[in-house]
Amino acid sequence: MDFSLNEEQQAFRDTARQFAEKELAPFAAEWDEHSTFPKDTIKRAGELGFCALYCDPDHGGMGLSRLDAALIFEQMAAGCTSTTAFITIHNMATWMLSNFGSDALRDQWAEGLMSGEQLASYCLTEPNAGSDAASLSTSAKKDGGDYVLNGAKAFISGAGDTDVLVLMARTGGSGAGGVTCFAIPADTTGVSYGRNEDKMGWKSQPTRAVILEDVRIPERYRIGEEGQGFKIAMAGLDGGRINIASCSLGAATAALSQARSYVQERKQFGQALSQFQNTQFTLADMATHLLAAQQMVRLAAWKLDQGDSDKSMYCAMAKRLATDLCFDVCNQALQLHGGYGYIKEYPLERYVRDARVHQILEGTNEIMRVIIARRVLGDLAFL
Amino acid sequence: MDFSLNEEQQAFRDTARQFAEKELAPFAAEWDEHSTFPKDTIKRAGELGFCALYCDPDHGGMGLSRLDAALIFEQMAAGCTSTTAFITIHNMATWMLSNFGSDALRDQWAEGLMSGEQLASYCLTEPNAGSDAASLSTSAKKDGGDYVLNGAKAFISGAGDTDVLVLMARTGGSGAGGVTCFAIPADTTGVSYGRNEDKMGWKSQPTRAVILEDVRIPERYRIGEEGQGFKIAMAGLDGGRINIASCSLGAATAALSQARSYVQERKQFGQALSQFQNTQFTLADMATHLLAAQQMVRLAAWKLDQGDSDKSMYCAMAKRLATDLCFDVCNQALQLHGGYGYIKEYPLERYVRDARVHQILEGTNEIMRVIIARRVLGDLAFL
Amino acid sequence: MDFSLNEEQQAFRDTARQFAEKELAPFAAEWDEHSTFPKDTIKRAGELGFCALYCDPDHGGMGLSRLDAALIFEQMAAGCTSTTAFITIHNMATWMLSNFGSDALRDQWAEGLMSGEQLASYCLTEPNAGSDAASLSTSAKKDGGDYVLNGAKAFISGAGDTDVLVLMARTGGSGAGGVTCFAIPADTTGVSYGRNEDKMGWKSQPTRAVILEDVRIPERYRIGEEGQGFKIAMAGLDGGRINIASCSLGAATAALSQARSYVQERKQFGQALSQFQNTQFTLADMATHLLAAQQMVRLAAWKLDQGDSDKSMYCAMAKRLATDLCFDVCNQALQLHGGYGYIKEYPLERYVRDARVHQILEGTNEIMRVIIARRVLGDLAFL
Amino acid sequence: MDFSLNEEQQAFRDTARQFAEKELAPFAAEWDEHSTFPKDTIKRAGELGFCALYCDPDHGGMGLSRLDAALIFEQMAAGCTSTTAFITIHNMATWMLSNFGSDALRDQWAEGLMSGEQLASYCLTEPNAGSDAASLSTSAKKDGGDYVLNGAKAFISGAGDTDVLVLMARTGGSGAGGVTCFAIPADTTGVSYGRNEDKMGWKSQPTRAVILEDVRIPERYRIGEEGQGFKIAMAGLDGGRINIASCSLGAATAALSQARSYVQERKQFGQALSQFQNTQFTLADMATHLLAAQQMVRLAAWKLDQGDSDKSMYCAMAKRLATDLCFDVCNQALQLHGGYGYIKEYPLERYVRDARVHQILEGTNEIMRVIIARRVLGDLAFL
Repeated sequence: MDFSLNEEQQAFRDTARQFAEKELAPFAAEWDEHSTFPKDTIKRAGELGFCALYCDPDHGGMGLSRLDAALIFEQMAAGCTSTTAFITIHNMATWMLSNFGSDALRDQWAEGLMSGEQLASYCLTEPNAGSDAASLSTSAKKDGGDYVLNGAKAFISGAGDTDVLVLMARTGGSGAGGVTCFAIPADTTGVSYGRNEDKMGWKSQPTRAVILEDVRIPERYRIGEEGQGFKIAMAGLDGGRINIASCSLGAATAALSQARSYVQERKQFGQALSQFQNTQFTLADMATHLLAAQQMVRLAAWKLDQGDSDKSMYCAMAKRLATDLCFDVCNQALQLHGGYGYIKEYPLERYVRDARVHQILEGTNEIMRVIIARRVLGDLAFL
Repeated sequence: MDFSLNEEQQAFRDTARQFAEKELAPFAAEWDEHSTFPKDTIKRAGELGFCALYCDPDHGGMGLSRLDAALIFEQMAAGCTSTTAFITIHNMATWMLSNFGSDALRDQWAEGLMSGEQLASYCLTEPNAGSDAASLSTSAKKDGGDYVLNGAKAFISGAGDTDVLVLMARTGGSGAGGVTCFAIPADTTGVSYGRNEDKMGWKSQPTRAVILEDVRIPERYRIGEEGQGFKIAMAGLDGGRINIASCSLGAATAALSQARSYVQERKQFGQALSQFQNTQFTLADMATHLLAAQQMVRLAAWKLDQGDSDKSMYCAMAKRLATDLCFDVCNQALQLHGGYGYIKEYPLERYVRDARVHQILEGTNEIMRVIIARRVLGDLAFL
Repeated sequence: MDFSLNEEQQAFRDTARQFAEKELAPFAAEWDEHSTFPKDTIKRAGELGFCALYCDPDHGGMGLSRLDAALIFEQMAAGCTSTTAFITIHNMATWMLSNFGSDALRDQWAEGLMSGEQLASYCLTEPNAGSDAASLSTSAKKDGGDYVLNGAKAFISGAGDTDVLVLMARTGGSGAGGVTCFAIPADTTGVSYGRNEDKMGWKSQPTRAVILEDVRIPERYRIGEEGQGFKIAMAGLDGGRINIASCSLGAATAALSQARSYVQERKQFGQALSQFQNTQFTLADMATHLLAAQQMVRLAAWKLDQGDSDKSMYCAMAKRLATDLCFDVCNQALQLHGGYGYIKEYPLERYVRDARVHQILEGTNEIMRVIIARRVLGDLAFL
Repeated sequence: MDFSLNEEQQAFRDTARQFAEKELAPFAAEWDEHSTFPKDTIKRAGELGFCALYCDPDHGGMGLSRLDAALIFEQMAAGCTSTTAFITIHNMATWMLSNFGSDALRDQWAEGLMSGEQLASYCLTEPNAGSDAASLSTSAKKDGGDYVLNGAKAFISGAGDTDVLVLMARTGGSGAGGVTCFAIPADTTGVSYGRNEDKMGWKSQPTRAVILEDVRIPERYRIGEEGQGFKIAMAGLDGGRINIASCSLGAATAALSQARSYVQERKQFGQALSQFQNTQFTLADMATHLLAAQQMVRLAAWKLDQGDSDKSMYCAMAKRLATDLCFDVCNQALQLHGGYGYIKEYPLERYVRDARVHQILEGTNEIMRVIIARRVLGDLAFL
């Protein structure tokens, strides 16, 4: 075993931290307040390769490991959790398109997406198919050399402001085996968008419904074969879960860091808050839980890199544990700030709002438990 | 022992519920979105007596018990937690003024405040005196028949939109014994207000700093004697803690109620969410914790009504337990809604944001533990 | 509402406390060590009426309310949790026999059981029917004027040392409707007992399997009608759950009391442990949770006394909450004692061992959640 | 980073698992019941090198890393937690003696101790110096070429059945700087032992007080220099904490494994317990927490191997997290077994009893938080 980061990883981390400190953190509150989607900033992230971190270098990606990517996302998320979370979704969708798509699709999209000039949305969830994603009902019917799609997707990050929809639709019978993945240009005739959902957090990225009415696309927009869509979607999500978990780590690190400073400055009853034992014990537990979460995320990323047969379980465990523990860390950091934690002059309440949704999306933490339990009932060889 | 509500209490509760359903709930989201302070609605609450619930009938109040008031606030808070929370603070400040103030002060303010035509702010916290309230530094210096006040108050609910400030300032030496309580007209020369703080929640009530620069007021604006201010402030807070805890109960009840409905309507994997055992067990624990919190609040209110010598401990326990458990109930209700819990189309995320501050104000839950521990180290006769 | 105990209740409580202090506490460690079943002590409890607290006075019982009984059991359990727990089971079984049984059965048993001269066991659980009690398979076949019973019961408190078995057996078809209740003399031919189970705690009461091989009993040993047995068993359990919850309250009160003393005596780093903030906050939460649990138990007992239609939900909530919170209180008290909490010279580890089983028996806390959820899904009118 | 075990580590692990399965698990219940100290078994562990795992090979040790040792202890503890815990303490004391002691001391003791023919006790805690170990008062006064020791040690594992006492005593002024470490033959004149403490668990190892009355030992029995004793004791404890945490991992793994099997065999309501969602989610969380704890222990062991400047913080975090989470895992496994979890026919309640003390000794988990907080208040560079 070796728990050290190599020099390259340390360099990535430093670059990401600098990007976060210069390009994200100073603007995060403003983006949150005005629901600004900072596309220019995302482009600058793209210039550093952050929009295609684990895509194949042969396709124009950075070719980093999932572990490398996790380290980078963690740093970025400490700057702006919401924006970084979108970038991770863009990475996931871009990887799906470039990894499972045809040369033609790559020629069409890879350069734009990987540079951050163009953006991708991941379209799986539907109004009536959330946790039970395999029951999706958006249909894609073959019509000559085309597919014609009808249906609706819900809660789509970036939708309405992105360029391509990596979208799962039903070409066959019911269940996972009837699902196919497509790359649909965002401005295709028949594609329309709902209003930008007003959310608790994640305000620097738009979330909209996608409505498809007789959307006709050529067959070559299909990613992979018919019936492989659910598998592709899930392959994307293994990494997506590590990414979101990394965003939670970043938010929690920022929150802990703020709290650490605050309790050393703020005085009550004649001494710094940091001198009260309850403050100290709270900080100790926050740091311990954050480190434990971080290790689990790194372990899962490494298992995914290894192609471990239990990779989905590791990703589910990391996502469940990190998003739960890190939400708590953010929330405790808010509490340590007292009234100041509740006002927007301080970033604490934003960390809490942003981190909250990580317990829900990319598979709710309840679905993570379903995935984990299935494996645990098999055997405990992973221990 | 008798755990039943009498007919009068049931009637109050029904009235409050109706008010909440008609006058509060339909507008709560809008007030939240636009940071609207619904003064007209508060006036209508005043018409029902809800602005002076436990004030002495001889002073124009409703003369209800703290327990009665808690029942009413609980119902109202299910409609709009934030607005109700302000009304509870107004009740507290109005009670302090009318209970401890002179006839002259009552003549000046009681009618307006108790009818809800005028509003009161409770001004204790300062930028450097939060949990350690007794260290407040706002000074009130005797100058002839006047007092001249200088200093600043922070996080004052309603400030800038209220008519009178029930304000604690230092007339004597350091510590609690040097504090005196005043009723200061909000538009007195020298009183100015900070900007409306942008907060995580509680958006239907403004929160501002109050700055006092050579604020000259006549001696008759003093509430009680010199040096009694801290005692008066704390007397207010015993009830204030029950009130805030009641607001948490209301928020959690609304959240549980929404969740109960949602899981019976929402289907995934071919069945209603309510058929999944995890959903059932989660609801069971939410309901159990909510009921336990409710009982503790009622017990504390009753002890306060009795003038029990341990009343401050009971109020602290009720506030600590109810605000913690009810925040968790709101947060679990959000989780049960999945993505829908995170968007403002549903009220869940608002309940979470509003309830969050209850763990902080009227004495943080850490201060509650200090109060409780002091008593517990004495003896356990209260068990 | 009225949260005060009346004078009679206070007198009962004082009597119970004195009994606990004189007759139970001094011997609890020894009974635990040697697995002594203190029948003489139980007899002395019977002399005070503690063996038939809520039995009808017309049948020779004390005729107290369930609330009165809960107050008494709580006090007794602080002296010896394990012994008191047995006495509560004896009370439950005695009440079932005397309340639902015939005059003949009462003539046979009531005096002996109510005086504590004779003891009763409650026999519901079977090796393959635990949580799913209605699936029990012990059969009672009608044969002339007799019943002939065959089967086995598991985890029966007191079995082998008691005089009568209040036993559920199947006289009809599958499910709850086929179950009938019987009073079987413990020494009836064909009744045999397993070995005394070596348990984690509850060592002062024997626990044995009961094996029934062609046990022939006259029809008049039936309690209630054929097919009413499950209903009778559950009626017993509503009260049984309050009783067990009361035993948890007693254990936790004793643990908290010990911890309170210990932290004021024990010094480390130059000051009493009680001066450390973590100690104070821990004690504060222990006391708050204990009080909340106590209130829930009293509320449930009162609802049972009122014959409230939701009484089973209240009992389930009280049992779930009190047994969980009180186990934690005992466990935290152990931790506050450091190494001394782990050795038998101090009672802490015994409280933990004894309280642990309360989360399991009289319906596991998982089954409590099933009961609660069923009600909560109906409506929330109980709030 | 590399999260894989190398071949050698896998081999150690397999050997340890086999030893646990053959030599420990089959006897653990019996040792627990009869408080048997299985010295012969420990000798057989010694034959495999398990009594000197991380001692220098030049001194006769196995020369393994702390990480290797942690892997081995984890496996062994799944067989018998209590016995393995003693072996880890023996390893710690043996390492202290052989690493910091003189050649003469090594000549005297190393072979016996490392082979498991002789056993060592670690003597730091005193009746009045637990968490505040640096305040110990056992004195060692120089008298010619000898030291004369007086005082008492408390809660000493193995004492009375071991051969050498690695003991901290005060040779200088107050505080940590006045403490010196000694190797005292267990049968030295003036050394006497208290009775074997009756404990909640850890019954297969004796725990006794050590009383020193005018115990005269030659100077060469000193380990290290005067005044270095506390540093040596703490150096031992960094590893000791990893060891104890590993014992918790082993207990929890065994508990989870038992629970996994049980819920698949046990049927209620017509299906295996494993088919209930609550069972599945509980198992999922148990496995996730166990894996997280395991990773933290391995990280800390690796940091200790690296001589990382933050090694004490990592060890404290690992000990705190693993002992807390693993106790909970054991306790949940007990709950999943229902009544069967509470009886000694099943090992669940033993895992709970054995694992409980790990939250207390080798520094209570409260002291771990003190250590962690001190570091966290410095900076967060470790994240």
